[in-house]
Amino acid sequence: MQKNPIPLTNPILGAGAKAGAVDVAAAGTRMAGNGMSLESQSEAFRRRSLCSIDQPGAVMSKLPQELEDSQHEFGSKLVVIMVGLPARGKSYLVKKLQRYLTWLQYDTKVFNVGNRRRIASKGDNKNGTSHSHVFFDPNNTSAKTIRDELALESLEELIRWLKQGGRVGIHDATNSSRERRKMLLNRLESEPNCRVLFIESICTDPVVLAHNISMKLSSPDYKGMDEAQARADFKKRLENYERAYQTLGEEDEEDGIQYCKLINVGKKVIAYNIQGYLAGQCIFYLMNFNLSPRCIWLTRHGESVDNIVGKIGGDAALSAKGRSYADCLSRFIKHQREENAKSQETETEASIAISHQREKTVAVWTSMLTRTKETVEQFDPKEYDIKHIRFLNEIYAGICEGLSYSQIEQLYPEEYEARRVNKLFYRYPGMGGESYLDVIQRLNPLIIEIERMTSDLLIVTHRVVLRILLGYLMDIDRSRMPDMDVHLHTLYCMEPKPHGTVVRKFRWVEEQDWFVEEAL
Amino acid sequence: MQKNPIPLTNPILGAGAKAGAVDVAAAGTRMAGNGMSLESQSEAFRRRSLCSIDQPGAVMSKLPQELEDSQHEFGSKLVVIMVGLPARGKSYLVKKLQRYLTWLQYDTKVFNVGNRRRIASKGDNKNGTSHSHVFFDPNNTSAKTIRDELALESLEELIRWLKQGGRVGIHDATNSSRERRKMLLNRLESEPNCRVLFIESICTDPVVLAHNISMKLSSPDYKGMDEAQARADFKKRLENYERAYQTLGEEDEEDGIQYCKLINVGKKVIAYNIQGYLAGQCIFYLMNFNLSPRCIWLTRHGESVDNIVGKIGGDAALSAKGRSYADCLSRFIKHQREENAKSQETETEASIAISHQREKTVAVWTSMLTRTKETVEQFDPKEYDIKHIRFLNEIYAGICEGLSYSQIEQLYPEEYEARRVNKLFYRYPGMGGESYLDVIQRLNPLIIEIERMTSDLLIVTHRVVLRILLGYLMDIDRSRMPDMDVHLHTLYCMEPKPHGTVVRKFRWVEEQDWFVEEAL
Repeated sequence: MQKNPIPLTNPILGAGAKAGAVDVAAAGTRMAGNGMSLESQSEAFRRRSLCSIDQPGAVMSKLPQELEDSQHEFGSKLVVIMVGLPARGKSYLVKKLQRYLTWLQYDTKVFNVGNRRRIASKGDNKNGTSHSHVFFDPNNTSAKTIRDELALESLEELIRWLKQGGRVGIHDATNSSRERRKMLLNRLESEPNCRVLFIESICTDPVVLAHNISMKLSSPDYKGMDEAQARADFKKRLENYERAYQTLGEEDEEDGIQYCKLINVGKKVIAYNIQGYLAGQCIFYLMNFNLSPRCIWLTRHGESVDNIVGKIGGDAALSAKGRSYADCLSRFIKHQREENAKSQETETEASIAISHQREKTVAVWTSMLTRTKETVEQFDPKEYDIKHIRFLNEIYAGICEGLSYSQIEQLYPEEYEARRVNKLFYRYPGMGGESYLDVIQRLNPLIIEIERMTSDLLIVTHRVVLRILLGYLMDIDRSRMPDMDVHLHTLYCMEPKPHGTVVRKFRWVEEQDWFVEEAL
Repeated sequence: MQKNPIPLTNPILGAGAKAGAVDVAAAGTRMAGNGMSLESQSEAFRRRSLCSIDQPGAVMSKLPQELEDSQHEFGSKLVVIMVGLPARGKSYLVKKLQRYLTWLQYDTKVFNVGNRRRIASKGDNKNGTSHSHVFFDPNNTSAKTIRDELALESLEELIRWLKQGGRVGIHDATNSSRERRKMLLNRLESEPNCRVLFIESICTDPVVLAHNISMKLSSPDYKGMDEAQARADFKKRLENYERAYQTLGEEDEEDGIQYCKLINVGKKVIAYNIQGYLAGQCIFYLMNFNLSPRCIWLTRHGESVDNIVGKIGGDAALSAKGRSYADCLSRFIKHQREENAKSQETETEASIAISHQREKTVAVWTSMLTRTKETVEQFDPKEYDIKHIRFLNEIYAGICEGLSYSQIEQLYPEEYEARRVNKLFYRYPGMGGESYLDVIQRLNPLIIEIERMTSDLLIVTHRVVLRILLGYLMDIDRSRMPDMDVHLHTLYCMEPKPHGTVVRKFRWVEEQDWFVEEAL
């Protein structure tokens, strides 16, 4: 979740981002001084930006001078409308999609109709909402009116938020009848500046479904209720939904909408009429999901000789201490693999894991720089799938390569200050120099790959790259991400679970030559 | 088509690609000297490489020493089996997919069963093949046996080619019955080192279908035949196919295969069980197609002050001459748009264009460097959708930035020679230095975007980037691409058509201050 988003105004960018080009996310309001009215200019831009390529920080739109200051007006605006029965993993998909898009720097927000219903039913409950299955009976017309109103109110809130500068608004509800979807579409027709993408989640895997239903029983709707009673009520609620459920299909296609149906989390994907750049990115991300249980290990390289003197960049070798870390890392990962294998054998719990057997291969990824490659030198390529990936290289610091931060402060005080003020947008000066946003863009294909993989994975990389990867995996606010402490000789372990990622942190203790777990 | 592929052995790579890491495409045969047999080691590697991330040049696999020299053994191997009735655009898809994958440096080859049938039926025609619709009657058992044999022979040829180092083999045939597909799958089961991806093309758009059928009548099968007669025969052939046609569906899903159904060229896409990295890339590419008529204009920036003195890299401004080019470019493109609009109005020919109206917006993309941005300064952002895209920046020459080629030869004679010998693989030394392969990887998302767009597009970029983009758009052999002449002040115009790209070339004549068309 984006708790304290940094406003995207006045990005401080180095080489290649001078006057005349503005980030589409960073545009205000001013009167047009030419023949064309400001309104029609803005309209034309909004229409264009709905479809065209948009990578915050890496693609800059040139706006007419009159519009250059108009803030939060342009760039792709997408309304995602979820469709699907309860307990089909909609909220899981929504959370992941929000996390991904936010990481790519599109402001994304979820508008959950169920939460609105629960809030509405608090207090005197004059408006007639209820948690009971009776409220979800399609023949209960007064309840249906309330449900429709709640859905529309959420949509209004979503539209207001997009107008204030949001980029992707997600309408999280069952929206399971064609009539309901038509109602939402009709409302959006008067908002020509938003594109609509329907995403339907279908789950036919009985194991996953049973698990999802169990999770639902711990929802606030059933607080304090006996489990059997809750289960019976939820079952009836489901039946009520199923009676009115209309899957996305040919009839919806006639409306010219774009939609994506996800069947069993990435197993089968049906995409119809996908048109915008952003919609295409969403679909590619969603189609690469899987629920296999696995660990993603992340660490920086062992201490390098440049680390000792505090130089940034470069391609230094490991220090003696760094080599000890590398050595211990390979033993520790081997040990962890053995532990995992044991615990898996004894695992009896009915869980998602049952339908997804853990893969035995472990992938090891490093950058193409010496210090990360040396860090995995003890890993046997017969046992590990070791890859050196250029996209994992450290941020390229341009003219600041090989300097220490205090040297940068002395030699380029203005650059030092600009970086301090907005580290996320700051691009190192000099040809090829990168910003955090540039690194996010180049890591994007690797995030898709991490989501696609089913095997365990160890990533050995560099400070900035690690911050950005953790930013995604741990859903860290972009205001905090560039300043996260990611120390040398620290190993993170992420286990993606259906309802969030379990994160553990291990520190190498040189004296013990082993890792100890630490609080986060 | 890959006419003279450069062998991928001994890639000459700069920083970050030293001993111990080899491109998976560049691996020979040697006996294993350790406990594990060479066979089982190779097996383990092949299995892994079937699924994992693989970007030729940008991802290097670390192999055990024993296997380091084994050539063309590893890396993803994919068998694409096409499915679909005749005249459904299979060959169009196959050609585009081959072009794309070859450009990404995966050796890709198409094995067309129809061509094999035509070759087989030449001469004495003892084997009983024929072009007549009778040959395609599903009840004609002797013909069916021959058709099955031809399909299997093509598959055998494909498998042999993969074993010799190919990466993606495409079996281009109708493969329209489940029985036929089962037959191919059974044969592939004894090849555990290949993944199989079925791609079905379905076309329900009557305009596209009528166009495709007309194209078929000019196929060699109907050479010298009267058109009405040919049409009648082809209609009967289609009917014969339709009788036996079984679309990919739930029954195939039970076989655990991975498949992708493309309905009306990118309009609707159904993807099932997609597992490998390479398969995912193929699907993402295929789902972003469209048949809208449009122009893609490409040029280098106008002459820069560094061009005058022959310096590479850097971020120089335009020279006076370069500014004149920029000025003329904006007038010429405006003129061309007006001409296109006129010709469209008078267009009467029944063509694909009918069902895809031309968009009016023109997108203009530049890199983030001064010389490309200055080249589009005369384009009015009210009329053009102008974007500055970092991924279009020139190849970063590392320590050679700002030098002339003769200075590089003097200062770094070994680098100069290494680059001369293998320009495609050569990576400039120094942190951040790039190779052609690196640039291909970073341009990949833009290629997808070019395919996805429906509007006209002008790309203003740099020499190396332009060569690589033309390499894709014009399907230029990788042995020629790095040495292509792409002069300053030259404008290319590409019109993607259902059966290939129409390319035109214009040269700016300074004296006339206008563009003249030139032979390619």
